[in-house]
Amino acid sequence: MHEIDVVGIGNAIVDVLSHADDAFLDKHGLTKGGMMLIDDDQARSLYAAMGPGVEISGGSAANTMAGIAALGARAAFIGKVRDDQLGEVFAHDIRSIGVSFMTPPALEGASTGRCLILVTPDAQRTMNTFLGAGVGLTPEDINPDVIQAAQVTYLEGYLWDPENAKNAFRKAVEAAHAGGRKVALSLSDSFCVDRHRDEFRELVEQVDILFANEAEILSLYQVDQFDAALQAVRRANTLAALTRSEKGSVILQGDEVHVIDAEAGVTLVDTTGAGDLYAAGFLAGYTTGRTLPECGRMGSIAAAEAISHMGARPQADLKALVAAKLG
Amino acid sequence: MHEIDVVGIGNAIVDVLSHADDAFLDKHGLTKGGMMLIDDDQARSLYAAMGPGVEISGGSAANTMAGIAALGARAAFIGKVRDDQLGEVFAHDIRSIGVSFMTPPALEGASTGRCLILVTPDAQRTMNTFLGAGVGLTPEDINPDVIQAAQVTYLEGYLWDPENAKNAFRKAVEAAHAGGRKVALSLSDSFCVDRHRDEFRELVEQVDILFANEAEILSLYQVDQFDAALQAVRRANTLAALTRSEKGSVILQGDEVHVIDAEAGVTLVDTTGAGDLYAAGFLAGYTTGRTLPECGRMGSIAAAEAISHMGARPQADLKALVAAKLG
Repeated sequence: MHEIDVVGIGNAIVDVLSHADDAFLDKHGLTKGGMMLIDDDQARSLYAAMGPGVEISGGSAANTMAGIAALGARAAFIGKVRDDQLGEVFAHDIRSIGVSFMTPPALEGASTGRCLILVTPDAQRTMNTFLGAGVGLTPEDINPDVIQAAQVTYLEGYLWDPENAKNAFRKAVEAAHAGGRKVALSLSDSFCVDRHRDEFRELVEQVDILFANEAEILSLYQVDQFDAALQAVRRANTLAALTRSEKGSVILQGDEVHVIDAEAGVTLVDTTGAGDLYAAGFLAGYTTGRTLPECGRMGSIAAAEAISHMGARPQADLKALVAAKLG
Repeated sequence: MHEIDVVGIGNAIVDVLSHADDAFLDKHGLTKGGMMLIDDDQARSLYAAMGPGVEISGGSAANTMAGIAALGARAAFIGKVRDDQLGEVFAHDIRSIGVSFMTPPALEGASTGRCLILVTPDAQRTMNTFLGAGVGLTPEDINPDVIQAAQVTYLEGYLWDPENAKNAFRKAVEAAHAGGRKVALSLSDSFCVDRHRDEFRELVEQVDILFANEAEILSLYQVDQFDAALQAVRRANTLAALTRSEKGSVILQGDEVHVIDAEAGVTLVDTTGAGDLYAAGFLAGYTTGRTLPECGRMGSIAAAEAISHMGARPQADLKALVAAKLG
């Protein structure tokens, strides 16, 4: 087994991005900035109502792995597609950027997952996800040798919905820790936190690295001030990176606390992938021996690139951007 | 001696506020957002060129004491005016809001200090200060009984310019510590920090509570990232409140770190006094036994009130505002 820096486990999704106004969101009962799970029928009808779209391979953890590869670190991805056209697109895209992807496609059942993303003029994205084949991820898809070859196993909170995927998640955590490796978790979404608050609070104590944005961490601890959430995370005693959009991020580990600014002078086009790419920058730094403030700045740089264009995956040379700013 | 919560020592200044555009600043060689010391002649010519002004008693530490009194805590002020009309205005104003002010006016020498403040359309303030009689503060004006009656002695960095005032400053620090009391210091201004960097670094280690804004703390430690300054302050092992304008503040004490948001939904009119009133809110909380995050929120609330109108001193009922938000 080749050494891997980070292996991501998550939903294999193709994003369909389209511009929309607030009236469109209201008409279809969508909550701006959130992620809603939809079924095959809803996906069809919403897709029909949307304007012309751009299709780009996505998925939260998959985006993070794409960012890590773009930063020059070694990434692998585990996630389920169907043996259909979108599944081929997903597999092609992620492999073409140097991410190892070996999960066999499902030969039956739901088609490859897709996320219908509506980007409003304020650059907010509202996501409607049909998980499709992604739900079919099972413990059998988790190869402990791959997990133990990776410095960090990265899990998206979205995976915590289907029961099979939860078990895959648990198997991965056990394999990583048995091999003396680290586990990172992204809370993914505040609605996701609402659904699984108690389980997520327990999980946070078990993982080694936590990623959460402000809405997620406030929801996790049911507080209304960021500082109150910050103090709760400190008590959980996990390395944590809390992202705050234009306010930057706060990184905690034991007694260390770092307050990292967002990159200045960025033109906001589409916030899709900001959190995924922050995690990519952070983990690419972490697995290559950077200090925590450097990891945070790498997160800021990668997130700034992600929000400056439509779609989550990097379009600029992230490695060169980081080299120019941090050396 | 009655028990005092905070005694402030600083320049006794009357502010003259006027609106101006960027062209006016350029024409008069003024650096936006900064504080420049001017002499009597410069004060006269700049005052003649300014548009119609509003005169309000000011002075950094004096503003802070006004805020503390408005919050219901007991404040006193030590600072030097001349026995002239502006000196009477200053003394009347500060006493009328309940701040004890007993420093005798100078009977000769320069007239009462004034600060010509130009507020640009972006709500930034550019300050041109004629210290006048304020420079005449000497160790004789420091009554150790008053210092030792106060829980906290609050010093503005601006005082560190005239040699006599420096000695007054040192006498106050010694008296406070001899009485087992706390000393707080506000760095006041990044140009002020530039002039006295080495002395200020030593002072920071001697004081118990430090207030600084982002420009000041970056200048003090000659770094360009906020987090680097934050780590330097942690090593200094002082209780510190670092203010960051719309990014809120960060409070440090030993292992404790709190990230406090600015108040939301504030209409920015004039930033004059934001830092002074943050310190007022913080110290009013600190001396009445509030937790550090509560002290920070009281600072945010008082600063938000200050920036919502022209001039530094509170116009709304700060005590009621804090009671409504924090209880």
